[in-house]
Amino acid sequence: MWQQVELSLKPYARGFHLITGNIEQALSELLPVHCGLLHVFIQHSSASLTINENADPTVRDDMERHFNQFVPENASYYRHTYEGPDDMPAHIKTSILGSSISIPITNGKINLGLWQGIYLGEHRDQGNSRTLVLTISGE
Amino acid sequence: MWQQVELSLKPYARGFHLITGNIEQALSELLPVHCGLLHVFIQHSSASLTINENADPTVRDDMERHFNQFVPENASYYRHTYEGPDDMPAHIKTSILGSSISIPITNGKINLGLWQGIYLGEHRDQGNSRTLVLTISGE
Amino acid sequence: MWQQVELSLKPYARGFHLITGNIEQALSELLPVHCGLLHVFIQHSSASLTINENADPTVRDDMERHFNQFVPENASYYRHTYEGPDDMPAHIKTSILGSSISIPITNGKINLGLWQGIYLGEHRDQGNSRTLVLTISGE
Repeated sequence: MWQQVELSLKPYARGFHLITGNIEQALSELLPVHCGLLHVFIQHSSASLTINENADPTVRDDMERHFNQFVPENASYYRHTYEGPDDMPAHIKTSILGSSISIPITNGKINLGLWQGIYLGEHRDQGNSRTLVLTISGE
Repeated sequence: MWQQVELSLKPYARGFHLITGNIEQALSELLPVHCGLLHVFIQHSSASLTINENADPTVRDDMERHFNQFVPENASYYRHTYEGPDDMPAHIKTSILGSSISIPITNGKINLGLWQGIYLGEHRDQGNSRTLVLTISGE
Repeated sequence: MWQQVELSLKPYARGFHLITGNIEQALSELLPVHCGLLHVFIQHSSASLTINENADPTVRDDMERHFNQFVPENASYYRHTYEGPDDMPAHIKTSILGSSISIPITNGKINLGLWQGIYLGEHRDQGNSRTLVLTISGE
């Protein structure tokens, strides 16, 4: 059984944001799957998806500060700078973190660990609404 | 056909460890799939999964040294430091490397390249037993 | 419905290369899937797959320059240097970027965003032909 749904997120500020609840709400409108996989894909090249600690907001803030340090703005070697200093770093962060996540579905629920949540990485200063494609398969 | 099994790894020292054999052993207890995919998910936010060179242990050691250099402990910008200097770097490494891998199954076997193996990245000084969820689907 | 095909890429120069067209051509020889997932796996530990901006070649060049800066050659901490200064950095880049991508299939087509393309990351100076395994599943 295959089901797919598109999910439009509201615009988020630059940084990392917990979106586990948004995903779960979108899934609640689909037929239940007992055993399978959830695949979440982001259709953008300046925003990313990753799984990390779900409890302490300072983790998300530290992630943002680390990535700003190690994927700096205004590096002398950038040529793709048309859309501002956040343009090229946003692309690099997207490839480091990735454009999709996948999570097992067990007994009808996404089987995250106790401390895991789904993060949106918004890497532009003025990111627009981001579109996700959720695919669930299983039986 | 969908099958899922949980695999508890023994505690590993901080660093990268080849766990291809552990995965293959867990799969041997499932019904064979001719053509499909294996998905391996780690239910933790301080340990990761990745695929890399399977022969020379210095690759795993160099990986550990590189990540320690580029995701340093005690960075001045960290706020999430409650559990010690290895806490926040472990979260960042997890997102850079990822929480899942997926590998094609071809003719009943996981279709890794000749030099590929599955690594556990243990990013805490004192990591506990880590839980993996293996999902195989196919026909 | 599960289908799998192997795709041999011609040797590419070190750097990032758009291979969306190669993937689409290989898929055109398979039976169409209305709703599902495409999984692309690279069977090597010195080359990677990632999804990023599909229009401006300077993005690929800036990616190469950034990764060369932050995964340097000749780092004093490398021990795995048998095959030259590009050897160990190639392994590290592969784990940072990843060995597989997966993309939703919607209405019979891979559902990339408008600005997304599939990149091969060739991390060796003299990379050979690289083998991909494409798996599509769905209905």
